[in-house]
Amino acid sequence: MSTNDHKWFIEHTSPSTAHMFGVKDYLKSFRTRFQQVEIAESFFFGRILIIDGKIQSSELDEYIYHEALVHPAMLMHEAPRSVLVIGGGEGATLREVLLHPTVERAVMVDIDQEVVDLCKEYLQDWHRGSFDDPRTELLHLDARQYLEDHADRFDVIIGDLPEPVEAGPAQKLFTRQFYQLINRRLNEGGILALQAGDFSITFMDAHSAIYNTIKQAIAEVHSYRAYIPSFNTDWSYIVASKDKKPACLEPAEIDRRIRERGMQLKFYDGETHRGMFAVPRDLREKRDAKTTVIDDKNLISIY
Amino acid sequence: MSTNDHKWFIEHTSPSTAHMFGVKDYLKSFRTRFQQVEIAESFFFGRILIIDGKIQSSELDEYIYHEALVHPAMLMHEAPRSVLVIGGGEGATLREVLLHPTVERAVMVDIDQEVVDLCKEYLQDWHRGSFDDPRTELLHLDARQYLEDHADRFDVIIGDLPEPVEAGPAQKLFTRQFYQLINRRLNEGGILALQAGDFSITFMDAHSAIYNTIKQAIAEVHSYRAYIPSFNTDWSYIVASKDKKPACLEPAEIDRRIRERGMQLKFYDGETHRGMFAVPRDLREKRDAKTTVIDDKNLISIY
Amino acid sequence: MSTNDHKWFIEHTSPSTAHMFGVKDYLKSFRTRFQQVEIAESFFFGRILIIDGKIQSSELDEYIYHEALVHPAMLMHEAPRSVLVIGGGEGATLREVLLHPTVERAVMVDIDQEVVDLCKEYLQDWHRGSFDDPRTELLHLDARQYLEDHADRFDVIIGDLPEPVEAGPAQKLFTRQFYQLINRRLNEGGILALQAGDFSITFMDAHSAIYNTIKQAIAEVHSYRAYIPSFNTDWSYIVASKDKKPACLEPAEIDRRIRERGMQLKFYDGETHRGMFAVPRDLREKRDAKTTVIDDKNLISIY
Amino acid sequence: MSTNDHKWFIEHTSPSTAHMFGVKDYLKSFRTRFQQVEIAESFFFGRILIIDGKIQSSELDEYIYHEALVHPAMLMHEAPRSVLVIGGGEGATLREVLLHPTVERAVMVDIDQEVVDLCKEYLQDWHRGSFDDPRTELLHLDARQYLEDHADRFDVIIGDLPEPVEAGPAQKLFTRQFYQLINRRLNEGGILALQAGDFSITFMDAHSAIYNTIKQAIAEVHSYRAYIPSFNTDWSYIVASKDKKPACLEPAEIDRRIRERGMQLKFYDGETHRGMFAVPRDLREKRDAKTTVIDDKNLISIY
Repeated sequence: MSTNDHKWFIEHTSPSTAHMFGVKDYLKSFRTRFQQVEIAESFFFGRILIIDGKIQSSELDEYIYHEALVHPAMLMHEAPRSVLVIGGGEGATLREVLLHPTVERAVMVDIDQEVVDLCKEYLQDWHRGSFDDPRTELLHLDARQYLEDHADRFDVIIGDLPEPVEAGPAQKLFTRQFYQLINRRLNEGGILALQAGDFSITFMDAHSAIYNTIKQAIAEVHSYRAYIPSFNTDWSYIVASKDKKPACLEPAEIDRRIRERGMQLKFYDGETHRGMFAVPRDLREKRDAKTTVIDDKNLISIY
Repeated sequence: MSTNDHKWFIEHTSPSTAHMFGVKDYLKSFRTRFQQVEIAESFFFGRILIIDGKIQSSELDEYIYHEALVHPAMLMHEAPRSVLVIGGGEGATLREVLLHPTVERAVMVDIDQEVVDLCKEYLQDWHRGSFDDPRTELLHLDARQYLEDHADRFDVIIGDLPEPVEAGPAQKLFTRQFYQLINRRLNEGGILALQAGDFSITFMDAHSAIYNTIKQAIAEVHSYRAYIPSFNTDWSYIVASKDKKPACLEPAEIDRRIRERGMQLKFYDGETHRGMFAVPRDLREKRDAKTTVIDDKNLISIY
Repeated sequence: MSTNDHKWFIEHTSPSTAHMFGVKDYLKSFRTRFQQVEIAESFFFGRILIIDGKIQSSELDEYIYHEALVHPAMLMHEAPRSVLVIGGGEGATLREVLLHPTVERAVMVDIDQEVVDLCKEYLQDWHRGSFDDPRTELLHLDARQYLEDHADRFDVIIGDLPEPVEAGPAQKLFTRQFYQLINRRLNEGGILALQAGDFSITFMDAHSAIYNTIKQAIAEVHSYRAYIPSFNTDWSYIVASKDKKPACLEPAEIDRRIRERGMQLKFYDGETHRGMFAVPRDLREKRDAKTTVIDDKNLISIY
Repeated sequence: MSTNDHKWFIEHTSPSTAHMFGVKDYLKSFRTRFQQVEIAESFFFGRILIIDGKIQSSELDEYIYHEALVHPAMLMHEAPRSVLVIGGGEGATLREVLLHPTVERAVMVDIDQEVVDLCKEYLQDWHRGSFDDPRTELLHLDARQYLEDHADRFDVIIGDLPEPVEAGPAQKLFTRQFYQLINRRLNEGGILALQAGDFSITFMDAHSAIYNTIKQAIAEVHSYRAYIPSFNTDWSYIVASKDKKPACLEPAEIDRRIRERGMQLKFYDGETHRGMFAVPRDLREKRDAKTTVIDDKNLISIY
């Protein structure tokens, strides 16, 4: 028995299921104006960020989460120049966006400055200087307010928001009205990508509702997924565009574009892409059976 | 607080990571000659089978595990007539095999009769009468001994064995010598499929070692994977054959064969297959870097 | 990591405090007509009995619990001939009662025959034949009904009931009316003893309420306590009589009576008695500040 | 499910037993030169201090621990003028010592300045200004070295040390040689009191060994105990002197001395004292059967 194996982060996924993570040290643990936030040093996954009791990313596998979120949309677009990141406090989504040499402007809007400041200090392996990139504009605003107040349009918009927990700051960023607003802020050929929660037969209500809701606002919508070890589950993403069909990009074409842009990736490539966009039959059926539309007047919150 | 939320199955995956499952009732809990076995009624996943502290399958998602294990190999073969199942005590692997109308003979060899008898009684939703099918031959022998003693050859051999824990009964069924023996017991065009442990960057040593070991014995070897909710991870499988290339089967062809054989599946189809066989880049690299060969004189055991 | 360290009994004492017990095997786990019952083989405490998620007694320390419950009352009485045990399904309270050679009749009333039958089969080290003693009368009735229907009086009445959980069978056996009934069924010089829940500054509401309630019905009431390792807390008892002052028995007199009755005890003797009846100041004050009276129309239930 | 019920402190007491404490926030978590230290805000017990994975004291019940440690020895002595506290980083032992108006000099020697500084900042309800009392001398030295280098003698010496874990700083402060040194530093009529670990039939090896060891060095030795809710167990103390018999002080005399010194206590008084010093029979027997003597060349360490 060592002298430091007594601190555990227990992430409940239902009243009778949970994951346990041994924690070496809690580097920070406090409430911002919006959320309960922790930075912990876990034994297994290295440094982890926890918001409202849910792990957001881990040192060991954040590259999977962030490559999966960013690159399909960015590569489907032939030359993304302007990108908007909503949320993404760790700075790693921004980091992956900036890998694309076509990018001239990357706006990041995250409401919670306290979280971003914390990440700047404690998660340097996440952002790696991306906040200081001359192409970056960092704003601490409500993303919806920002989009309503600014008529700027983007080639790619990426949503990297915590899940919509009861009364959390992200609840109004998953509604039909919000996606319609996003559609108006996308350039021709523009693409939206976002993380959309668990993707398994046991937990996919959030995914299905978001998927169905985006369909009301944007023409072409696809689910995809990646297994994130620290989440202990396949995780879902959604990509949406007026006219692009991401699943139709052949692996060889994806590999070609990655080379062309001179990027070194660890998780994502053509074969990875093919696997991500091929969704198992039971998930497709369960997703497509869902008729919920999230509306400003009919919000959802997850466990 | 209810009066029955105090029994937990805690599955450690490392000293500092674990999954918790709330248990309604332990229906059985005992040691066979070979293994510690439990049948539990869990709140979330329904009935579960636990061997040596590791969940083997759950009522809620066993169809994923078993469809993924059986159908790729069975459908790659144009007309599998004789099938050997090694392990598979629940009877669900056998059940999926028998769905294929071409099958004339299905031999199942599971060393632990106590486990099989337990499954017969408690896991009726798993086997659904497959033990009583006239095509079935059920034997309680060491599978290696059986293959050495019998010269019968098979179109498909399926390995559904618990992981090779220290001194467990399955340790000698993961070696180069064993796979060479299997190769000799496969008909021309014959195919081996087996479950091969966790498949994530954090846990894939067993998969990589098994994959590399099979390569020493059988010409064509492929990894594939499925996310199993009750395992909390992507799970790996391996399919091996002298001359078939499973990843080359196009989705449309798989769907055609399923229709042709008149099978109703929940998880597996052409698109599912495509997703399963497209392995992410980081896993491919980590797998291919492994040079371990499991030998009768160099056994492995997993945590 | 052994192959059998995955089953845990987690006893919550509040939403944010709990005790964990590693379980080797669940020998039985089922619902009787009244309660959720388990017999488990724990690694640390040996066999344990769990009712409605709360440990009732353990092989390792049941002697402390039962000696503490039975002997103060039995020894305060100079010659107890007739004894009534209410509850006490394990048979160990009965066992301690029968150690006193003066006893001619021991009636045990436990409503839940399924629990008693289970204990007969699985807890032989608890009852040790006491159910078969010719002085024993075992009845499966509601204790309150029994006392109302029978005018028999007793020298000592011992309450060994699970705590009054919501809608549990014992809720009406902790009320003022019930204690008044008991008072009428006590002979002159008769004594009531009962277990009365946790006894610590953090958990003693049940104790205080029961103590205060008995005071409304029986003249002389005393709290006492013993530390029970498997309960992880000091546990409280109450002894009540018309005219005896248990705390006034000097250690030497208790030791003399034990010798006189020829009993071999492990936990209880004169010095133990002195320690049990000397209640710390903070507990006395907290107990005495409580004005709750449990009434048939004002039941309590504990967490 | 609230957004902040995911941090748990799990204190293992054996491989198969543990206590769980829900933690609101970890205020500090780091390694000093000697120990792993945490200050946490727990939901149930308020602020807690954890050293090397073991809870040292809690806001809710530290008064029990510290009154029990300090006052028996201080009141047995008719007029304690000089007191030495060894360890006691929280400052609460010092606080209780300074309540006695006879005290003119209180030396506190705690090797770990980082812990003391932390307690000064975070545990103000513990020390309440005692570090600033003009009678206090605070030194950060190895206590053994201090006693060897200084010939000063004391009326009362109080040991408030963490348990002797493997290679911990306190291992050499529980040996025969150390107690002999203490004996030489006690004035005539001087008294030693110390905490001595768990006191239950399941965990009392440390207590028994310390008790037996002190007997080799100081003539009159007594065990006593108090239940500490946040420790989930009866806790043991030992008081030793050349000529005083603490158990012989009658409750009335203790109450008289407390009044005489004008002290307001919450836990300790005459009746409490009586209960503390009356040790149950099984513990006495188990303690007295132990023959271990802890020697500089035969150290012990606890789980």
